[in-house]
Amino acid sequence: MRRDIFTPDHEAFRESVRDFIGNEVVPHYADWEKAGRLPREIFGKLGSLGVLGMAIPEEYGGAGLSDYRYNVVLQEEAARALVTLGTVRTQLDVILPYFLAYATEEQRGRWLPGMAAGKLLTAIAMTEPGTGSDLAGIRTTAVRDGDAYVLNGAKTFITGGLLADLVIGVARTSSDPGDRRAGLTLLVVEDGMAGFTRGRVLDKIGIKAQDTVELAFDDVRVPVANRLGEEGEAFKYLGHNLPQERMTVAVGSVAQAGAAIATTVDYVKQRKAFGTPVATFQNTKFELAAMAAEVEAAQAMLDRAVLELVDGRLSGADAAKVKLFCTETQGRVVDRCLQLFGGYGYMAEFPIARLYTDARVARIYAGTSEVMKVIIAKSLGL
Amino acid sequence: MRRDIFTPDHEAFRESVRDFIGNEVVPHYADWEKAGRLPREIFGKLGSLGVLGMAIPEEYGGAGLSDYRYNVVLQEEAARALVTLGTVRTQLDVILPYFLAYATEEQRGRWLPGMAAGKLLTAIAMTEPGTGSDLAGIRTTAVRDGDAYVLNGAKTFITGGLLADLVIGVARTSSDPGDRRAGLTLLVVEDGMAGFTRGRVLDKIGIKAQDTVELAFDDVRVPVANRLGEEGEAFKYLGHNLPQERMTVAVGSVAQAGAAIATTVDYVKQRKAFGTPVATFQNTKFELAAMAAEVEAAQAMLDRAVLELVDGRLSGADAAKVKLFCTETQGRVVDRCLQLFGGYGYMAEFPIARLYTDARVARIYAGTSEVMKVIIAKSLGL
Amino acid sequence: MRRDIFTPDHEAFRESVRDFIGNEVVPHYADWEKAGRLPREIFGKLGSLGVLGMAIPEEYGGAGLSDYRYNVVLQEEAARALVTLGTVRTQLDVILPYFLAYATEEQRGRWLPGMAAGKLLTAIAMTEPGTGSDLAGIRTTAVRDGDAYVLNGAKTFITGGLLADLVIGVARTSSDPGDRRAGLTLLVVEDGMAGFTRGRVLDKIGIKAQDTVELAFDDVRVPVANRLGEEGEAFKYLGHNLPQERMTVAVGSVAQAGAAIATTVDYVKQRKAFGTPVATFQNTKFELAAMAAEVEAAQAMLDRAVLELVDGRLSGADAAKVKLFCTETQGRVVDRCLQLFGGYGYMAEFPIARLYTDARVARIYAGTSEVMKVIIAKSLGL
Amino acid sequence: MRRDIFTPDHEAFRESVRDFIGNEVVPHYADWEKAGRLPREIFGKLGSLGVLGMAIPEEYGGAGLSDYRYNVVLQEEAARALVTLGTVRTQLDVILPYFLAYATEEQRGRWLPGMAAGKLLTAIAMTEPGTGSDLAGIRTTAVRDGDAYVLNGAKTFITGGLLADLVIGVARTSSDPGDRRAGLTLLVVEDGMAGFTRGRVLDKIGIKAQDTVELAFDDVRVPVANRLGEEGEAFKYLGHNLPQERMTVAVGSVAQAGAAIATTVDYVKQRKAFGTPVATFQNTKFELAAMAAEVEAAQAMLDRAVLELVDGRLSGADAAKVKLFCTETQGRVVDRCLQLFGGYGYMAEFPIARLYTDARVARIYAGTSEVMKVIIAKSLGL
Repeated sequence: MRRDIFTPDHEAFRESVRDFIGNEVVPHYADWEKAGRLPREIFGKLGSLGVLGMAIPEEYGGAGLSDYRYNVVLQEEAARALVTLGTVRTQLDVILPYFLAYATEEQRGRWLPGMAAGKLLTAIAMTEPGTGSDLAGIRTTAVRDGDAYVLNGAKTFITGGLLADLVIGVARTSSDPGDRRAGLTLLVVEDGMAGFTRGRVLDKIGIKAQDTVELAFDDVRVPVANRLGEEGEAFKYLGHNLPQERMTVAVGSVAQAGAAIATTVDYVKQRKAFGTPVATFQNTKFELAAMAAEVEAAQAMLDRAVLELVDGRLSGADAAKVKLFCTETQGRVVDRCLQLFGGYGYMAEFPIARLYTDARVARIYAGTSEVMKVIIAKSLGL
Repeated sequence: MRRDIFTPDHEAFRESVRDFIGNEVVPHYADWEKAGRLPREIFGKLGSLGVLGMAIPEEYGGAGLSDYRYNVVLQEEAARALVTLGTVRTQLDVILPYFLAYATEEQRGRWLPGMAAGKLLTAIAMTEPGTGSDLAGIRTTAVRDGDAYVLNGAKTFITGGLLADLVIGVARTSSDPGDRRAGLTLLVVEDGMAGFTRGRVLDKIGIKAQDTVELAFDDVRVPVANRLGEEGEAFKYLGHNLPQERMTVAVGSVAQAGAAIATTVDYVKQRKAFGTPVATFQNTKFELAAMAAEVEAAQAMLDRAVLELVDGRLSGADAAKVKLFCTETQGRVVDRCLQLFGGYGYMAEFPIARLYTDARVARIYAGTSEVMKVIIAKSLGL
Repeated sequence: MRRDIFTPDHEAFRESVRDFIGNEVVPHYADWEKAGRLPREIFGKLGSLGVLGMAIPEEYGGAGLSDYRYNVVLQEEAARALVTLGTVRTQLDVILPYFLAYATEEQRGRWLPGMAAGKLLTAIAMTEPGTGSDLAGIRTTAVRDGDAYVLNGAKTFITGGLLADLVIGVARTSSDPGDRRAGLTLLVVEDGMAGFTRGRVLDKIGIKAQDTVELAFDDVRVPVANRLGEEGEAFKYLGHNLPQERMTVAVGSVAQAGAAIATTVDYVKQRKAFGTPVATFQNTKFELAAMAAEVEAAQAMLDRAVLELVDGRLSGADAAKVKLFCTETQGRVVDRCLQLFGGYGYMAEFPIARLYTDARVARIYAGTSEVMKVIIAKSLGL
Repeated sequence: MRRDIFTPDHEAFRESVRDFIGNEVVPHYADWEKAGRLPREIFGKLGSLGVLGMAIPEEYGGAGLSDYRYNVVLQEEAARALVTLGTVRTQLDVILPYFLAYATEEQRGRWLPGMAAGKLLTAIAMTEPGTGSDLAGIRTTAVRDGDAYVLNGAKTFITGGLLADLVIGVARTSSDPGDRRAGLTLLVVEDGMAGFTRGRVLDKIGIKAQDTVELAFDDVRVPVANRLGEEGEAFKYLGHNLPQERMTVAVGSVAQAGAAIATTVDYVKQRKAFGTPVATFQNTKFELAAMAAEVEAAQAMLDRAVLELVDGRLSGADAAKVKLFCTETQGRVVDRCLQLFGGYGYMAEFPIARLYTDARVARIYAGTSEVMKVIIAKSLGL
């Protein structure tokens, strides 16, 4: 069905992004997957194109267009080209909002221009070994010492941590046995600070073009001037951005599920089995038809939620429903599509194989499907 | 999420419909199910309320508001009250459109006022024993003889056939071996015409409050003046209204799936198992949360399609996607909800039991899920 | 695959049962469904045939062949003929074991001959309104008064309660706040005892040929001589027979799922859609092939468990796995089979419709799928 | 439930295999996955242990115990240790049977001792680019020229092709336009023959410890003495071994699904989420319980089929049912298990990640699930 959430401005942005991806990403993507990360240069180029600064105010080098639909377009065009922009997406959809919402004027001047230009790469360090996504269980500590916090702890599953110039670390600045959520603070750790080291690069099933690393903070002195927002308020801040974080996963899931169907439709038309094009088998038709219907539903749901998000009105429960449904749909779709490729679907050189292995994380990160169900159930009064 | 397809006029209509259903339907519904049909009186009352004439021009006793959203509201309110308005729905969503689109001025004057007032009940007779929903296989014949057609044939699965004053019969007026779709014509058979008899009332798994019967035409002389539209054009006419017929099933499916969730949420909160409210089990929460997400997706998809239909732009393939997804979702949802009732879910006195047995037909009538997939696959170029 | 659990004796029994069902059950089954119960006469005939007494010692009129495989054969042959023997099955598989295990010599002489002959019909009354299958929550009380217990309480969901001459009632004879399982006793209530009344016959989605009723005990004086087993031991007794009760549901599920496939294979071969036999569509073939594989797995699992049961070695957890898997498989299979019938599948006159509505209870009674999961999880150490 | 297909001899074999895998495989497995293949030495060690020669007659250095259950034990023990023995399995279950069934006395003397000793590694080359598993579409040709065949063609998806000393190539020695299955012949190509080259090593989603390569035959002169069986009979030979090939996939699927459950049960007991062991969540319990029931069904079905295979009586349709059900079950199980690991499940260092990526091929190779359904449907008369 006709989608009605985009304006001509979004479509113009789409055109330029599509060209960029075709010229600057697609030819190199296999190499990036082998390298296990995006190259630093791509950030510079995206900065020059204006993509990284869309939501950043003009005085800091951006376009001042804070409209999540540009982020949607970016992911959709990457998916259409059968690539991803993993850490770019994280920077724009997950991390930048914290800087925009909580940075002081001085911090904005110090960091936003570099982020807009693609010169300052970022990461956010929440998860710790053993705590999963349970923020309340964070054990990294930051102890105030004069004009600095002394930061100690270990983080894992940090997307983009390898190249990050700025890492938003979530640390415990005080502890209240009665309120496990209290006392968390955001501190911006900079590359080169003494005691800040990057650990193992984790080998993942998929999303190979983005690095996921362990980080360690060993008596890192982080100036108070690098604190993002108020001391002790991080739990609230992190919760506030969760709907968008979940939407960004859902946006990717729907776009990639759609891309999976498109590449499969192409494949089955050209591929023969037992002397007949695979597309002519009723099973092929029915599988793809069923998937097309599911993805259409996911798209309609997602688009409605995008507008709600843009209007600042998307509830946590609705974001949870969207993430749950869209990522589960993606999971089923890529599995069924891969099957229609037969043995070729299992070969990494076929994009469907990457779509399959990439997809598996979507039901897990930014809150597992189980966590989404907990949130939704609460909204039902259960 | 917020739905945005209704105006205040629709909401006002919803209020009056809700009252009506609460007062005039709910108290009698169990009796109607036992009787196997709606009583004739309910049509008169719905006529007086203005419900039956919403889309009929004012000069024929209607409100002149041809807006499918009123039909949506009607089904939603019935579902909310855990009842259905089976043959009313058929008359408004499936049959009336043929009269509005193809009746001559003379026919409009003859029939529309009675339909608006609830004095003329209607049915449409397409399916024949052995042909299923394959219109091209219709074997009922209508042979022109002077100013009448002589109609012969048998029909089955006719919703509302028991009380219908007017039956739109689909008959073959000519046969072209090279084009099985050619030569079909719509003839309005009236109650009391010689040779028109009603056969067995079919016993169904569910949808007990609407009758489904066999009809027989044995040399029925139908005046040419009762022909709806042009001779030989019925295949086109029937195809033209298919998207709305399929939408009407989808509308019911989503509304009833939502009602199933609501009644189950209520039940599990009050019901105890092993000394604990069923609502407190994580399985209960997760089941209902997953269902809520699926129904939210179905609702978003449906609402988008409703607007497309209202704008006269809903394609056959999109209607097929919507019917497929919404009815399959309903099927899964009612099954899972029933399970949460335990043994009570299997007892007909609990509305969930009726929601379960009613739901099974949705994946079948107005085109099976398999037919929907055929249509969707074609739209994918397969 | 070849099944290897039956001996020639079982196959001879199968022959005679098959003839009996074909001659004495099939011709009348539709009437019994309408009546809502099996007629009393069928018990007499099954008694004469020796079916009811297979497991009863010869001195009490039986054959003395306590071998659960005869019960399996009985259900399989009923399913093959597309009928059920609901209350017969309950008597043989669920109730008789209590009499055989716990009746005194005097009781055996008093009751077993009548049960073998089909003159004494039985039921067991466990479930109470509001407690579901939670035995520990039973509120029916039996207070010792001289040589009788005075029984008070209400029971529901009692299969075969309408005609039962003997009802094993589960009642609380003492209460121990620290052990909710203690203090339950089995009492055999006889038809005609003062204060024993039968309440509403419950209208169910399916299994229409067996009655399910409410029972009330209002100061019923049950002689101590009618106590089955020791006072206060019922919880243990009931738990002991649970594996067989669950197996009996699984046996029915697998047999009926197999029958559903068989009747559907027949149907799709003869039925045409769009001018082509339904059997020729790849979707039809793939659906039935997938189902055949699932039912083959269920059958293999079930047969292994039958041998374990016969050897007296079937654990509660294994019985739970078998019930869970076999009933869930049946649920999926009958739904998919019905779909292949199109509109006819929704018509009660087609056996697939009955197989569909009957099947829904299998995931619920004798312990829901959720209860089975609880049991299995415990066996995994969770 | 108790499994009853093994004798004490099998269990003794199991012990020695278990030790071997623990000592010789597990410590090196991660390296082998990185290398993309098993090392040649492991074959020598397995030869010394007697594993490779179990089914080879004693006069050729084997144990003369042709009993497929030893192969089952081998896979089960590998799975239990969370590793695979990919190309070993192919050699024993898929390739060796051709040598045993069709090799001449001279060929047996020439090749079997080396295979028993692990000095001759093997592969079979059926699939060609573009033909998939459609043997009838094979385009590789072998033209008789004196005492040799001149072999030309390309093969792909060849498991173990990198190190193979002997490759059974399937080639067309004559073509009959009326019978696409006629004219296929098996030729044993030896390492070092002129014109025989190994092409790309294919990068796969999983099963990383076995190589999958492309092979090219460019005017390779294969002596007639290397022909396995009769000229033109290969289609029959290949079909004859298919049930065992499919069983071997199913055996792996069930064993690995069981291993997935076991490692997940361990994990959830030790892992905490939101301060609570994951094992205590009802969702965790229910998921694992449902999976345990499914794998129990798969195991029962598989064991029955193993006995049928050992008895030489397993039909193609039954093997297809077993492969279909067991591989589909594995697919569902590994996906659900991985989810219970949260983010760790996506990390390659966790065995569940490997079980997940390995599993995806099982529904594809040795005949896709779709091909299995075609075979089963035929056996149903569809």
